[in-house]
Amino acid sequence: MSVRQQLDAMGQAARDAAESLRDAPAEKRSQAIRAIANHIRNRSAQILAANAQDVTEATTMVDRLLLNPERLEAMARAIDEIADLPDPVGEVMDSWTRPNGLQISRVRTPIGVIGMIYESRPNVTADAAAICLRSGNAIILRSGSEALRSALAIGKAITAALAEAGLPEAAVQIVPTADRDAVGAMLEGIGGTIDLIIPRGGRALVERVSKDARVPVLGHLEGVCHTYVHASADPDMAAEIVRNAKLRRVSVCGSTETLLIDREVAPDLLPRIAQELAGCELRGDEAARAIVPMKPATEADWHAEYLEPILSVKTVDGLDAAIDHIAKYGTRHTEAIVAQDAEAAEQFLNRVDSAIVMWNASTQFADGGEFGFGAEIGIATGKLHARGPVGPAQLTTFKYQVRGSGQVRP
Amino acid sequence: MSVRQQLDAMGQAARDAAESLRDAPAEKRSQAIRAIANHIRNRSAQILAANAQDVTEATTMVDRLLLNPERLEAMARAIDEIADLPDPVGEVMDSWTRPNGLQISRVRTPIGVIGMIYESRPNVTADAAAICLRSGNAIILRSGSEALRSALAIGKAITAALAEAGLPEAAVQIVPTADRDAVGAMLEGIGGTIDLIIPRGGRALVERVSKDARVPVLGHLEGVCHTYVHASADPDMAAEIVRNAKLRRVSVCGSTETLLIDREVAPDLLPRIAQELAGCELRGDEAARAIVPMKPATEADWHAEYLEPILSVKTVDGLDAAIDHIAKYGTRHTEAIVAQDAEAAEQFLNRVDSAIVMWNASTQFADGGEFGFGAEIGIATGKLHARGPVGPAQLTTFKYQVRGSGQVRP
Repeated sequence: MSVRQQLDAMGQAARDAAESLRDAPAEKRSQAIRAIANHIRNRSAQILAANAQDVTEATTMVDRLLLNPERLEAMARAIDEIADLPDPVGEVMDSWTRPNGLQISRVRTPIGVIGMIYESRPNVTADAAAICLRSGNAIILRSGSEALRSALAIGKAITAALAEAGLPEAAVQIVPTADRDAVGAMLEGIGGTIDLIIPRGGRALVERVSKDARVPVLGHLEGVCHTYVHASADPDMAAEIVRNAKLRRVSVCGSTETLLIDREVAPDLLPRIAQELAGCELRGDEAARAIVPMKPATEADWHAEYLEPILSVKTVDGLDAAIDHIAKYGTRHTEAIVAQDAEAAEQFLNRVDSAIVMWNASTQFADGGEFGFGAEIGIATGKLHARGPVGPAQLTTFKYQVRGSGQVRP
Repeated sequence: MSVRQQLDAMGQAARDAAESLRDAPAEKRSQAIRAIANHIRNRSAQILAANAQDVTEATTMVDRLLLNPERLEAMARAIDEIADLPDPVGEVMDSWTRPNGLQISRVRTPIGVIGMIYESRPNVTADAAAICLRSGNAIILRSGSEALRSALAIGKAITAALAEAGLPEAAVQIVPTADRDAVGAMLEGIGGTIDLIIPRGGRALVERVSKDARVPVLGHLEGVCHTYVHASADPDMAAEIVRNAKLRRVSVCGSTETLLIDREVAPDLLPRIAQELAGCELRGDEAARAIVPMKPATEADWHAEYLEPILSVKTVDGLDAAIDHIAKYGTRHTEAIVAQDAEAAEQFLNRVDSAIVMWNASTQFADGGEFGFGAEIGIATGKLHARGPVGPAQLTTFKYQVRGSGQVRP
């Protein structure tokens, strides 16, 4: 059987499973999710052995790839938490009655079949499966080849859990081959069976998926996030927020990559902020360098998602200039203003066109868990369907239910 | 200047206009919409003259293409109504406070730049412009060549209205050429300037757009809508709903194309329904034909969107069979059940995966106006972003505004 034929069979099985899932009660799906956590624990020896093989053959990224008993238990605990999340399916989002008596409700429903293409991190296999079950969707998972053995070992735990809960095993399927034809088939939608593709990985992966996909994509390109220190900022708060926004974890997409600071307060504030950022490389424009010694920033720096302890620093002449810089160089992920001036802050919140805009808070809060979504499958930087953290509710669509008493249209 | 260069310039101008629109207050956009209606009235002579030229050169579809003073006034009145609709931009869709004190709001924002590719009907030019202004979006309109003179004449009224209201003229732009390269450029997104493509026209157009677009598409493929008469249906109600669902207007996408009827009540009910459907051609399965003389239905009939006074009729063995038929042959647009049995009806409403599911009402209510949206740019049959009638609110996206007091992430 060719890879294409194999994918065709998986697609059809996923479509059938999605129909069963649509009708499956929330509690049955919760049971399946809990069973995944348990079976991951029960099969920890096999999963760790498979992962050890992956790690042995890996040439890079070993830390992201590595599982150990602690990480495996953390993975299982995260799954248990998803089982406890409120179920979005069937939620009445809105309802109203028309003058003719028709009662209209907008009700959340599963999307259908999700295709996910991802790299390296074995926990994504389990997380994505659980989030999709929570939202009533079937999923086809295509792990990067470097983590394929780990993914397949976790997949066995998932399959056992689905069988135990009485749900179709095809609700979660893992592409069993590293053959790149499988990616091509998924990007074409496997003959109309895939409703949505979610890429999760580096820029090259997301760009390829966005370019080649023939089905809708919920992607995350880059997070070039900005923190803007307004002239009215409280100095202590500004220093603490900038430090946290940059350095709490430099490798997350919500970490700040560029500091914008109002020219009039830069002489006072920048030295203090620089002091807080000990260990972080600064790259600044001329005005910043005149205040604090640092490397010069080039045009490339304003575009850079460093994901490292490096921060570009630009002095700006007020709110409009800060907003213009963000519009030009930002990636519409997350931006923050630090200000005591409420009017300036509200202008920033209204005029900056990013998925998340913040006032007096660290950009590192850009996270589904921190938003109260319980779990996230990623952060969407596009504008259609979902924007920002993608939790179970964002993986649903809706339908209109109309209840009448014999109405006909005049 | 080549067509591509021309489109590049239009795309950049639209992007700049979208930024101005995002900040433009609702009242200013309302003024612009009202001014469009007025300028259409003021320029009626020029618009009708341009339309007369289009009609002279047209070979088919003359009625859809034709404007006359009455239709022109109806077009202007529809625009006036859009000016009075509630403005979706800035609406707080949801808000909550996290345990750490962060206040999170989900706020509606414009999508940005819409690209619309459409056929024949000149009123779409004015409608789409007004709906996009209502939702704060800029739009690039590509009319079919058969209606291009009409579209450009209406475009002059729109440009005058935008100037009068102090909004950028590039907020609404009409592609001035019938060159098909323009469609290609739009489907590629004009260098990242188009956020969403909306095709409106026949199946061939929508299929081409869906296949070739490199940007998200909000499309409407077909409406093969079903009305299912359950064994518990009130006979009078069933006959009236089926007649209205099929015959009120046969050319609309929400008209019923297939009648499903429970086998046990077909001998009593089908003759009565057939009597109500005088003038409508029936095509039935064997059991239906044994009750009422009619042509035999072929497999193609179950797939057919007739948009004519033709109805296919299938007898089914209860709810499950009806739902299975809809899942196999439906296009996920609109389906209705006629039933007195509330449990059966609720099962139908929950299990049928269409944009609109109805109980005891005519499928012809599938319309943004009938839903209370005030206006619609079309009905979406996909599942992502918008589903069902697409009014101004469905042409928005959202962002998260987060208000803090210095929170940093632990």
